[in-house]
Amino acid sequence: MTTLDLGSVNLSLTADLLCYSTLPERFTDGLKMSFIKSRAVLISQLGDPTKVLKLVTQKVPLNLGTTDVLVKWLASPINPLDINRIQGVYPGSQSDVVGGSEALGVVEKSGSEAKLKPNDLVIPISLGGQLWSEYDVIDESSLYKVRPDIDLLSGAVLLVNPPTAYVMLKHFVKLQPGDYIIQNSANSGVGRAVIEIAHAWGYKSINLIRDRPEVDKLKNELRQLGADFVYTEDEFKKIGSSIAKEYDIKLAFNGVGGRSALMISSSLAFGGTIVTYGGMSKKASEISTSSFVFRNIKACGVAVGNWMMMDENKAEVSQMLEELQQLIVEGKLHPPPVELHELNDFGEAISRTVDGKHCKQVLLIHPDHKNYKQRPSKL
Amino acid sequence: MTTLDLGSVNLSLTADLLCYSTLPERFTDGLKMSFIKSRAVLISQLGDPTKVLKLVTQKVPLNLGTTDVLVKWLASPINPLDINRIQGVYPGSQSDVVGGSEALGVVEKSGSEAKLKPNDLVIPISLGGQLWSEYDVIDESSLYKVRPDIDLLSGAVLLVNPPTAYVMLKHFVKLQPGDYIIQNSANSGVGRAVIEIAHAWGYKSINLIRDRPEVDKLKNELRQLGADFVYTEDEFKKIGSSIAKEYDIKLAFNGVGGRSALMISSSLAFGGTIVTYGGMSKKASEISTSSFVFRNIKACGVAVGNWMMMDENKAEVSQMLEELQQLIVEGKLHPPPVELHELNDFGEAISRTVDGKHCKQVLLIHPDHKNYKQRPSKL
Repeated sequence: MTTLDLGSVNLSLTADLLCYSTLPERFTDGLKMSFIKSRAVLISQLGDPTKVLKLVTQKVPLNLGTTDVLVKWLASPINPLDINRIQGVYPGSQSDVVGGSEALGVVEKSGSEAKLKPNDLVIPISLGGQLWSEYDVIDESSLYKVRPDIDLLSGAVLLVNPPTAYVMLKHFVKLQPGDYIIQNSANSGVGRAVIEIAHAWGYKSINLIRDRPEVDKLKNELRQLGADFVYTEDEFKKIGSSIAKEYDIKLAFNGVGGRSALMISSSLAFGGTIVTYGGMSKKASEISTSSFVFRNIKACGVAVGNWMMMDENKAEVSQMLEELQQLIVEGKLHPPPVELHELNDFGEAISRTVDGKHCKQVLLIHPDHKNYKQRPSKL
Repeated sequence: MTTLDLGSVNLSLTADLLCYSTLPERFTDGLKMSFIKSRAVLISQLGDPTKVLKLVTQKVPLNLGTTDVLVKWLASPINPLDINRIQGVYPGSQSDVVGGSEALGVVEKSGSEAKLKPNDLVIPISLGGQLWSEYDVIDESSLYKVRPDIDLLSGAVLLVNPPTAYVMLKHFVKLQPGDYIIQNSANSGVGRAVIEIAHAWGYKSINLIRDRPEVDKLKNELRQLGADFVYTEDEFKKIGSSIAKEYDIKLAFNGVGGRSALMISSSLAFGGTIVTYGGMSKKASEISTSSFVFRNIKACGVAVGNWMMMDENKAEVSQMLEELQQLIVEGKLHPPPVELHELNDFGEAISRTVDGKHCKQVLLIHPDHKNYKQRPSKL
């Protein structure tokens, strides 16, 4: 039995889940061996995320390959990416697999030659699935060891949004401290990471959000994260052109598409770049002819998952994850506001994500952590 | 008096336009000197192109600076660019200037140190104005000497559309013979140049046009220019995705914007590029989120005029203009179907361009050439 103090919570391999039985063929070496039962949320078929998910109980073997580790998944977000995968619109979507794209786990048991050891905290290194479960056995090459002093939520949401923000801020335009960037969807997970990383690196951010109840509260929240300017899109419609003239905005980040993309791309300085990472509006991004022809604006996209999985980027990915963790432990990069649901409660968790009105990142959390409280941040 | 056989037409400095008078101050060297009268189409103020143009008579001096030349403008197109300049929506638009962006002229008289000599055929090297006139005196550094064997219409439309097509085919993606490109507005001046240059260089072109009366005739015309495939946008809506799968389309050219841009960008292969050069629909270009995020499509624009005016591109511009002229004299690159109007008839010429229904390039032509007949092409 392993224990690890993570935040204020005791993580332990729950004894009553330990069982003995015959394992599926792929784990059989001719002997009966031990396994544990693990609940998991299965994508039974592609389709409506509120209908096709099923809670199943799987058998996870304790007899590990030499470089395998047994991981207990502590918390795993439900991302828009996951919704797209369930709907079957994400490239490579498949059914009859456990859902999930990112998670924080703790190693419970290691194979004889594995470098990862019990109590190590890990995240999956690809946007692979099988994460909406309590336990899994994985070859350690698919895992990345994170710092022991990272908090549970920051670790669970480390893989997707902060790298997207990091890569967008670093890989497209060479910015100097004091340079301006603009983004829509500024209150999204990526948007918040952009604000905090830009602030930490000395860049100025202009942030657009959609109008909503209690918009001033949200504006204030983003300003406290380090946003230099926060406007609703309606406000920006009126003042955007004067802002564009006043500041030399080199880079725009687009998570919305439609007219919102038009708004931010039109505010870019000559030669600026707009990077698309999402399309929340489900509308194609609009970019004006004069932006392209008279102002030499470039438009491109980023799929940070693909970038991270390329062998040639391995060193750079490690460097990035180290930097991001450093920002986290220094209190400069926070997880977004979250809502935690146990696996049993996956239906509600999915509904709230699909609904999208709550402005909180929904995570599935291991039963051992169901009472986990998000650390009060400096905010 | 100079004469030049250009096509079947006799070009001559018309004797009855020769006059003597006091010139405006900028030409005065303290003496009375000779000038000729020259009619010109003046942009009297920015606004509706059908209302703000005026035919004026200007005095053009015959007493030239050392590197000046007297040019007789033989033919000058009315381009969308000119319409935008008159409307005041093109960057740097100004009133109280003679209109025009490109032209073919013949040198009638040279300053003492000018390298250009009488009978040399010239085009302006920048997209400068003062071209919708009969005569002008210009420093030779603003002119480019074209081949004596180029035909009048090809020379007059050499500066804008063929270079746009050339640069788009050459500067964004390194194509190999057999590679595919796709474009909308395939029957426009740029579109036709794209078809012919792509064909000459061994690239395959997929060409979209808007549905119209006698569409089969137009399709056939474009095929005879070298188009490999021609579809109406409605036809392409149905078959576009299968075309996209079948061919590895690396490059798209967008002169329309709106949903038409969505259509061609969505047919690009992974990592493809869409280059915008115009926005005939007056709608912002649409590009899907999945194109950017999952297929790594890049979007940019081209303003070939700016590119040509940069000092560092001088050698490359000359090389390009030589290559384009070579294609013209080899019969591989043709001017689009044209309609000629005398300067007196500028009102009708502008109306027909603004109307845009006639699918012909309108040119203002010197009275000496009012009976010029477009050479029968191989088509």
